[in-house]
Amino acid sequence: MSSKKIAIIPGDGIGPEVTAAAREILTLAARKAGLDLEYATCLAGGAAIDATGVPLPDDTLAAAKTADAVLLGAVGGPKWDTVAPDIRPEKAILGLRKALGLYANLRPVKVSAALAAYSPLKPEIVTGTDILIVRELTGGIYFGPKCESETADGVERAWDTEIYSVPEVARIVRMACKAAKGRRGRVTSVDKANVLASSRLWRRVASAIAQEEGTELSHMYVDNCAMQLVLGPKTFDVIVTGNLFGDILSDEAAVVAGSIGLLPSASIGDGPGLYEPIHGSAPDIAGQGIANPVGTILSAAMLLRHSLRAEAPAAAVEQAVDAVLAEGYRTADLYRPGLTKVSTEEMGKLIIKQL
Amino acid sequence: MSSKKIAIIPGDGIGPEVTAAAREILTLAARKAGLDLEYATCLAGGAAIDATGVPLPDDTLAAAKTADAVLLGAVGGPKWDTVAPDIRPEKAILGLRKALGLYANLRPVKVSAALAAYSPLKPEIVTGTDILIVRELTGGIYFGPKCESETADGVERAWDTEIYSVPEVARIVRMACKAAKGRRGRVTSVDKANVLASSRLWRRVASAIAQEEGTELSHMYVDNCAMQLVLGPKTFDVIVTGNLFGDILSDEAAVVAGSIGLLPSASIGDGPGLYEPIHGSAPDIAGQGIANPVGTILSAAMLLRHSLRAEAPAAAVEQAVDAVLAEGYRTADLYRPGLTKVSTEEMGKLIIKQL
Ligand SMILES: CC(C)[C@H](C(=O)O)[C@@H](O)C(=O)O
Ligand SMILES: CC(C)[C@H](C(=O)O)[C@@H](O)C(=O)O
Repeated sequence: MSSKKIAIIPGDGIGPEVTAAAREILTLAARKAGLDLEYATCLAGGAAIDATGVPLPDDTLAAAKTADAVLLGAVGGPKWDTVAPDIRPEKAILGLRKALGLYANLRPVKVSAALAAYSPLKPEIVTGTDILIVRELTGGIYFGPKCESETADGVERAWDTEIYSVPEVARIVRMACKAAKGRRGRVTSVDKANVLASSRLWRRVASAIAQEEGTELSHMYVDNCAMQLVLGPKTFDVIVTGNLFGDILSDEAAVVAGSIGLLPSASIGDGPGLYEPIHGSAPDIAGQGIANPVGTILSAAMLLRHSLRAEAPAAAVEQAVDAVLAEGYRTADLYRPGLTKVSTEEMGKLIIKQL
Repeated sequence: MSSKKIAIIPGDGIGPEVTAAAREILTLAARKAGLDLEYATCLAGGAAIDATGVPLPDDTLAAAKTADAVLLGAVGGPKWDTVAPDIRPEKAILGLRKALGLYANLRPVKVSAALAAYSPLKPEIVTGTDILIVRELTGGIYFGPKCESETADGVERAWDTEIYSVPEVARIVRMACKAAKGRRGRVTSVDKANVLASSRLWRRVASAIAQEEGTELSHMYVDNCAMQLVLGPKTFDVIVTGNLFGDILSDEAAVVAGSIGLLPSASIGDGPGLYEPIHGSAPDIAGQGIANPVGTILSAAMLLRHSLRAEAPAAAVEQAVDAVLAEGYRTADLYRPGLTKVSTEEMGKLIIKQL
């Protein structure tokens, strides 16, 4: 049995509950594939601020760097809304992305007929949606030069720089093209090339890479994409875009799917990947054992697939989740009369039984 | 009878048809308020490129500057998709915004029970939505310093600068606060202050101005706003945001409403305002007399209100539109069995009859 190291960052709010449920499933699924997992539990976010004064302690960073993958619950909450800007909980996320070189964020959004009822969209518009959003995660306006305050012509101003280089764009677009090959083969590259110089470079590089990869590529302006995600989410296969547009569009796509507690994400680079559900820390329901662990469990499946190269157990976890949902089991967030309400732990056990 | 000058820019595609219908109604409504309108018809966009080689001829700019207001149809179309970047049709729009100092874009989005059926959202989620998006229109990353291509460390890159000054933010937030006073009194300021320095300045200035104005203000991150517009559009009153976020969010909000052919916009500054429907030039249906003129007609109502300070005729036009739609008249884009299908011209005449 070969052994792999997983850093677990439970984080804040419901983070500890959902990562506990996912960890059990991850361990079991990996074992079936002949992988023995060794866990290191680390602090980040609010929990780390409380314990150490900073959101991303050096120990956590070191553990993440030496792990094969990182599984994260959620960070933040109103308790830390008033801490100094440079130690805010989300600095842990941005810090991990940069330190681990996690240049690609993968956000699959799938809407089965059974789950379409949860969408704010009409079922006929949303059923069958199956999008993979590939967001560039270590560049763009998030990490470009910025100025908090300066005075010019007697006026105070602040600025940020949206900046992209050819290799940065090439790398992420290539990943999107490769991902499309295992899917319906179509990539939509989203930019604002009618206004932004960085988008014109993005568009030029995206076209060249798609041609190299032999992938069907179309270009779409970000404002149009924000419309099409609501008008016709089914029309998309893979969407590739920059850091800021990806932040906005992936969250929009998530709510179009309707059940945010079910959605996973993977952030990958050349070293260990980071896997986390897309929902937040939900401090209002923390500690009650009612949080939905499925987003984290599906993130663990992505961890198996992308960081441990264990496709079969990844698919097995996904199928187990589908089966349990199809049987009508729901945590409180998705409960409706006629279905069976279960706790975080029960949901985990049901998925384990399926496995 | 006092006289006012209106520059009309029909533009491309269906632009000429919808502006013709709106012009008749504008003339009539103004006359009732004792205003005599004098029109100058001008070229812009693709039509101007074909005739003069540039999208925004000096004549047009001069006519716009000396007018009391500008009414525009739509510009662009596939025919001009391959012209050189610096003479693209949308340069006409950006050029007019900058030359006329149109720093505020107002985009009302209203969903009556009768029109909720057109929304991709479930009726119970969207019915009763009444949002005014106030977008900053002459600053931010649209007009900041940019670089198309440079080489650093042997790598080609391009960049744009998102930049906001205190007076720019103060001006637009103040306008949003004043607009909220005639509505439900609540302003949501949208930014990305957890990442962007310009957003942190924006947030600080917005808070100060709202306090001065005595307006209830809340702050929301742009990714969250993109979610809330789909999850709960009814929860918003006035949204104020920067140029880029406003571009994305106002288009998203428009499709949430479902009937893009009905939505108007106003771009205002200290001089003449520019009024245009939010839909595009729809070259596929141009010249057939079937385009929906309502977005342009409601833009004419905004022109009466904001540039001619003629509130009563503005409201009269809006009521006439509501009445005609309530009677079940629809252009082809919104036609459904059981309703009455009308042409562009017939729709105009019906609204005139109501007036
Ligand atoms: C917390 C924040 C900095 C982060 C981002 O904007 O990237 C979040 O919104 C996300 O999408 O993971
Ligand atoms: C045509 C384009 C430059 C423009 C913009 O981005 O502002 C358009 O999308 C709009 O919103 O009016």
